[in-house]
Amino acid sequence: MVPARHLSLYFVMGSQDCAPPLSPVDVLKKAIAGGITCFQFRDKHSGLTMKETLALGRALRSECRQHHIPFIVNDRVDLALLLEADGIHVGQDDLPVEDVRALTGDDMWVGVSVHTLQEAEEAIASGADYLGVGPMFPTRSKSDAKTPLGPEGLAALCKQLTRPIPIVAIGGIRAAHVPDILSAGADGVAVISAIASQTDPEAAARALLQTVETERRKVQP
Amino acid sequence: MVPARHLSLYFVMGSQDCAPPLSPVDVLKKAIAGGITCFQFRDKHSGLTMKETLALGRALRSECRQHHIPFIVNDRVDLALLLEADGIHVGQDDLPVEDVRALTGDDMWVGVSVHTLQEAEEAIASGADYLGVGPMFPTRSKSDAKTPLGPEGLAALCKQLTRPIPIVAIGGIRAAHVPDILSAGADGVAVISAIASQTDPEAAARALLQTVETERRKVQP
Repeated sequence: MVPARHLSLYFVMGSQDCAPPLSPVDVLKKAIAGGITCFQFRDKHSGLTMKETLALGRALRSECRQHHIPFIVNDRVDLALLLEADGIHVGQDDLPVEDVRALTGDDMWVGVSVHTLQEAEEAIASGADYLGVGPMFPTRSKSDAKTPLGPEGLAALCKQLTRPIPIVAIGGIRAAHVPDILSAGADGVAVISAIASQTDPEAAARALLQTVETERRKVQP
Repeated sequence: MVPARHLSLYFVMGSQDCAPPLSPVDVLKKAIAGGITCFQFRDKHSGLTMKETLALGRALRSECRQHHIPFIVNDRVDLALLLEADGIHVGQDDLPVEDVRALTGDDMWVGVSVHTLQEAEEAIASGADYLGVGPMFPTRSKSDAKTPLGPEGLAALCKQLTRPIPIVAIGGIRAAHVPDILSAGADGVAVISAIASQTDPEAAARALLQTVETERRKVQP
């Protein structure tokens, strides 16, 4: 299991999420300075070749290592292994958790994106270390996103889970949503554009983290 | 190094290369019956999810294992490892050979697509087990294919190589091209549509193999 504290402010980014003048490394540096607690490298449909993706991954991995931020890789286990990632994150259409685990062993966390209670239970049964539950709200960062769950949907899912597991909520989340999401049972929030698309990613991350920490104290006093 | 005999008739295929009524497994069965000496699973832009790609890969791998046909996976090392492939094939934009080798160890062959003498020399220096040289002729199976080398370009490349390495030629190859390609120095031909798009893939494979074997006897009497 991923220690829940790492999920407080989980930043997901790839080169498709950044716009000049900020490079992905610039954005990550600022996000780290702002206090993100975890980073997922998700480079999809960006037009980068695998060779370029690997090079960018190495630069981002180095930033995370330097600042002791857990580094998760999306989808490709080979990339995760080469980057000595702390974890791998898979969606429902990606490699199954059991197969991922066969390649990574037990040292790497495996996170799974889920949208329904059934997907959540299956992910837990297959040995997931945490769940990414979403989308919470409409989002433009994923073109294939499903119907938003909202905090009510998240709360229902969390309540019905037969076994506890660290949960991060994802999808269109802004600072104003944080109270409802933590009350619903999530350990933290995952964001893409709420940090990557901001003119000041550091300030955006800092504001999000502060809200998460304030609300956490209310939920778990 | 890959024993050169495996490269005589190297069949490359994914679900994007097959059309109903024949499934990829059907096509592979027929290609094996026709005498292919190696198979590369290359599922690209087919619309399959990774979960589906893995399932199809397992079915194709099983056919190859049953008939002792070397099974190579294109691009994704994680898929190659999960499918217990005999080899992995990478292009110039994919993961570098050294990184692939770091994941696969020495047991899995690493093949590299090259278009120029410099790429060929670099691939050899980095430890490639064989080269796929192409494209030989114009092809519709790869949308991003480069200027065709023709048998003359292949001959020039083979002559200038500082170290020998098994070579398979690829790109728009038909049976009529085989004599020139083997004379130019290739150990065999790799084809996609010359087998996969034919109404009778078995007969197509058999005719190609026969031509390769006949010409090989002339080149290496």
